[in-house]
Amino acid sequence: MQQQLSVITLGIADLGRSKTFYRDGFGWTPIFENHEIVFYQMNGFVLGTWLQAAMEADLQRDGLRRPGAFTLAHNVGSQEAVQLLIDRLAAAGGTMLRAADAPPHGGLRGYVADPDDHVWEIAWNPGFAIDAQGLVTFGL
Amino acid sequence: MQQQLSVITLGIADLGRSKTFYRDGFGWTPIFENHEIVFYQMNGFVLGTWLQAAMEADLQRDGLRRPGAFTLAHNVGSQEAVQLLIDRLAAAGGTMLRAADAPPHGGLRGYVADPDDHVWEIAWNPGFAIDAQGLVTFGL
Repeated sequence: MQQQLSVITLGIADLGRSKTFYRDGFGWTPIFENHEIVFYQMNGFVLGTWLQAAMEADLQRDGLRRPGAFTLAHNVGSQEAVQLLIDRLAAAGGTMLRAADAPPHGGLRGYVADPDDHVWEIAWNPGFAIDAQGLVTFGL
Repeated sequence: MQQQLSVITLGIADLGRSKTFYRDGFGWTPIFENHEIVFYQMNGFVLGTWLQAAMEADLQRDGLRRPGAFTLAHNVGSQEAVQLLIDRLAAAGGTMLRAADAPPHGGLRGYVADPDDHVWEIAWNPGFAIDAQGLVTFGL
């Protein structure tokens, strides 16, 4: 079976607030949006931000909780870029959780939450390859 | 800036139990594992499953909650494959949340939780293209 994930969908409370974070913070452009969801074409998969009530209705399950036990990472090309991007994301409606510093496993990383308390790690990790299309390959 | 996400990391309670679900359910093979984390090379990014206590220590934030307000989707190539995969994931330690049926936006989908209550949508969506490498492109 394909080692493949098609979509990551984040439950959000406010479409405009979330879009400001992803647009002005990361500089990303939606590929589709309507009154309840925004989709972004990513590197080989799709990121969605969906009003949490609609997500719960589709899932037939209430009470999804934030912050959830997961993190999303965006790797950048230099050590200097880590804190710069964290600051830009915080200015776009995010909340800095941990300033950039060096973890035991190497590289450099910090954490910032989006306006719905979904956690992003911003990292410089020279072991991971990222090609011109943004496709990421694991490495130590 | 690249519209790129490098890693999705799920907080888990038990490495072996989680690995059984991803290996026997999805049929996926880790690219790296140690005493606290397992990584899978995915379609253009990396999926990690990390002991939640270690994740919280790195994040310097306790109390990450499950189920979180997010879903992951794996799209399959036929309608018939949706429920078959849900059943296989449930047999590998998952919990079926919603049996396959047709959502208002078209296609077919169901939901299953992994052993740590992270929600997977299994979907057939003819609008999305998936190439031989598993790279997914948004479509209506």
